[in-house]
Amino acid sequence: MATLNVPHEIPPAPEDSEQLRKAFEGWGTNEATIISILAHRNARQRGLIRQHYAEQYGEDLLASLDKELSSDFERAVLQWTLHPAERDALLANEATRKRTSGHYVLVEIACTRTSRDLFLVREDYHARFKRSLEEDVAYNATGDFRKLLVPLLTAYRYEGPQINTTLANSEAKILHEKISEKAYNDEDLIRILTTRSKAQLNATFNNYNDLFGNPINKDLKPDPKDEYLSLLRAAIKCLTFPEKYFEKVLRLSIKGLGTDEEALTRVVVTRAEVDMQRIKEEYYRRNSEPLDRAIEGDTSGDYERMLLALIGHESS
Amino acid sequence: MATLNVPHEIPPAPEDSEQLRKAFEGWGTNEATIISILAHRNARQRGLIRQHYAEQYGEDLLASLDKELSSDFERAVLQWTLHPAERDALLANEATRKRTSGHYVLVEIACTRTSRDLFLVREDYHARFKRSLEEDVAYNATGDFRKLLVPLLTAYRYEGPQINTTLANSEAKILHEKISEKAYNDEDLIRILTTRSKAQLNATFNNYNDLFGNPINKDLKPDPKDEYLSLLRAAIKCLTFPEKYFEKVLRLSIKGLGTDEEALTRVVVTRAEVDMQRIKEEYYRRNSEPLDRAIEGDTSGDYERMLLALIGHESS
Repeated sequence: MATLNVPHEIPPAPEDSEQLRKAFEGWGTNEATIISILAHRNARQRGLIRQHYAEQYGEDLLASLDKELSSDFERAVLQWTLHPAERDALLANEATRKRTSGHYVLVEIACTRTSRDLFLVREDYHARFKRSLEEDVAYNATGDFRKLLVPLLTAYRYEGPQINTTLANSEAKILHEKISEKAYNDEDLIRILTTRSKAQLNATFNNYNDLFGNPINKDLKPDPKDEYLSLLRAAIKCLTFPEKYFEKVLRLSIKGLGTDEEALTRVVVTRAEVDMQRIKEEYYRRNSEPLDRAIEGDTSGDYERMLLALIGHESS
Repeated sequence: MATLNVPHEIPPAPEDSEQLRKAFEGWGTNEATIISILAHRNARQRGLIRQHYAEQYGEDLLASLDKELSSDFERAVLQWTLHPAERDALLANEATRKRTSGHYVLVEIACTRTSRDLFLVREDYHARFKRSLEEDVAYNATGDFRKLLVPLLTAYRYEGPQINTTLANSEAKILHEKISEKAYNDEDLIRILTTRSKAQLNATFNNYNDLFGNPINKDLKPDPKDEYLSLLRAAIKCLTFPEKYFEKVLRLSIKGLGTDEEALTRVVVTRAEVDMQRIKEEYYRRNSEPLDRAIEGDTSGDYERMLLALIGHESS
């Protein structure tokens, strides 16, 4: 499912760390070396390299990268090098200070990570910001957005496959009733979306479709410009069909006027070790163009090479 | 702070386990042996005994205890023998199915455990009930109770000592404004209580008292019979002065008509390894009678002996 390409035999971490140091020295920076090493190591291996680098050179590898690199390439390399929980804590913190676009990032982190991984993000957030994630989100978000985001982020959903079919049926009816009344911020609707397991929700949404003839997200689209409804649909998509959600984020980041590098980078670095293979398949299905070709068409230089390496397509 | 009395030298776990097995065998059960072993072992040691017992006799120690013991003594021994997170998960599950009294148990677990321990309860809840704790609470509670309980239980509060004094001041004013308007279920009021760290809340409540001349809990008491307000005050007490909260639960469990063994047992078994020493001090301060004497006056037999052992007072 991942697209990250780790060679069968990799050098020991101190050697990688030394090669990286050399890439920073002398005239100019050797970006190719940085990509050839970091874009081909998994989270644990990158962690080891960072640890050895700090011991050998008395500086955080991220600080060195920050000095040597710039713009989109820098952001991609820095974000990628971080541990996933650390990266999500930073992305979430950034998101708490933005309005609309930030809400989507928070929904994405809350609904596409495993319960355990989401908890690790909250743990890292404590260590880093001396506050809780929910504290910052609850403080910054308002109204219906807060009502939805806080329980999504604080949830620790059950992850087993067990499903209660009676409940799926009765809760599909509750959802339909609330949606028919346009009570989109209803407490029961939010309770169901924010506490039930992904397997249970999937069953509930299938029941909804069977009973009422429409996918739930279709009924949640009376006004495509309503920001809250759009966020609600994103949450549902993330919970039940994350590859499809990420495909859409990628599509919009590439197809719009100009490229949304922030979104493009975020999806590539957060999914390369998880489900990027499935996302690429979805992308091809929806756009009749492979994701690597779309990225080649829209980005350039080291940034392009970094992204392509992470999605498993080496241009070199 | 704990009252649990563990001897300097304790037998290896397999030996304890064997002694317990002997106590169950033959005519009658040797309750004194059960108390002398289990009431003098900490959570880790009890866990080891349970593990060895299962290996040696092919049965969970709890199942054996369940067969041999009865009534209040049984409940006290079983609850005590459990790992704290396991015990809390069971107590919380029981509480989700009760109305008023259950709400207090949920507040108690949410607000007096450390953030880490509360998370371990949620983890154990998954493993045991194949659902999430918040899922069951949100499903069973209604209205304002749900609005308060779910974020309390899903919080992962920051636990450092850092305080933002500007925020403590501004949030004290928000709380006062909402309370003056009798908007006790206001979103901001609930946000503050359910997301801020205990240190931060303490600063906020002190500011409240300084600025407006009353402790916040006094202003939350316009109608002493209002169940929601009473729960709100319990949450505040648990967050800022847990010994005092537990003193009151003990007092009411002993002083009322008859004894509330469920509450008495719960407080003794959940606090003996944590802060029972401080609770005993509070109890004496408030009642001019030592807690052990109050327990001696209100309970009897093995149940009495078990409770006294746990609060560090051996009657034998």
